[in-house]
Amino acid sequence: MNGVMQMTTEATTLNDVNLAAVGGLIEAIRNEPTTADTVWRATVDWKRGFQSEAKIRGFEPLPSDEPVSLGGDDTAPNPVEQLLAALGNCLAVGYAANASASGVELTGLQIQLEGDLDLHTFLGLADANAGFETIDVRVSIESDAPADQIEELHRKVVSTSPVGHTLQRPIPVNIALA
Amino acid sequence: MNGVMQMTTEATTLNDVNLAAVGGLIEAIRNEPTTADTVWRATVDWKRGFQSEAKIRGFEPLPSDEPVSLGGDDTAPNPVEQLLAALGNCLAVGYAANASASGVELTGLQIQLEGDLDLHTFLGLADANAGFETIDVRVSIESDAPADQIEELHRKVVSTSPVGHTLQRPIPVNIALA
Repeated sequence: MNGVMQMTTEATTLNDVNLAAVGGLIEAIRNEPTTADTVWRATVDWKRGFQSEAKIRGFEPLPSDEPVSLGGDDTAPNPVEQLLAALGNCLAVGYAANASASGVELTGLQIQLEGDLDLHTFLGLADANAGFETIDVRVSIESDAPADQIEELHRKVVSTSPVGHTLQRPIPVNIALA
Repeated sequence: MNGVMQMTTEATTLNDVNLAAVGGLIEAIRNEPTTADTVWRATVDWKRGFQSEAKIRGFEPLPSDEPVSLGGDDTAPNPVEQLLAALGNCLAVGYAANASASGVELTGLQIQLEGDLDLHTFLGLADANAGFETIDVRVSIESDAPADQIEELHRKVVSTSPVGHTLQRPIPVNIALA
């Protein structure tokens, strides 16, 4: 019961994080817990070969492809790379939010992600895990804050990351033909 | 032990999928199984607030942000939307690959994804699952192939999707400070 919640007591902006907006959301959830129930969507259109694009709200479509070695035209990052990007971007939000809430100024933050994947199952050569075996993440934080404060920040982020939790838990994924 | 492996027996291109490239990869893996061990990477740089960008190989960085209601500036899709996009793009590759391998011509393919997420844990108001509770996917396939062939295609794709498997299984995610 700590972390971003502390934002409500902060009046100023730190790390360019809009603490007032987050504080307002937290207040709204306290008043009406179902406000925390969110739904997120994406629509993917296949183009040709292994090329597709994902539409999210009104943003420019995100292109996707596969490397030539996997039969694609290598015009864009592939889906498993996009998954790593989503995890890294999610962690970045977590560090920025929790740093701001606890008064830690960040001067830089870089997150390197790496995942191991055995292609046998995807290619029909085995009937096992087609997905990542493990994902390793290295986080470089630039800040003048003391090491114990950075470690506490890190602990909070790791224990509250939406994409991190999604990957670490078995999620029901229901895929149906329309 | 079926699916994309059948590509090796196909000589022509279907759905603009480069079957020869995939067949070559499968042949290489048969000769040397460790060829299937792949490593994928992304690097995320935090910019300001909840804005970051992901660099993948030489491609244009993928921007990330949060909606205003969550304290962001709403300049780009957020990380959980990116995760849904990655799943949809991965399934699109699966349908294209397996359709081509089994001689099914696709004239269109659209994938709609939706995920439910309770914000309590991310915001520090609970200590539970910060990630998606469930993900629902609806796949619209346009093809003249008979329904049973489409259902068999669907079954293969769902059982061999790298991002799908990653989400449906608990994956070790090791996040360390550099």
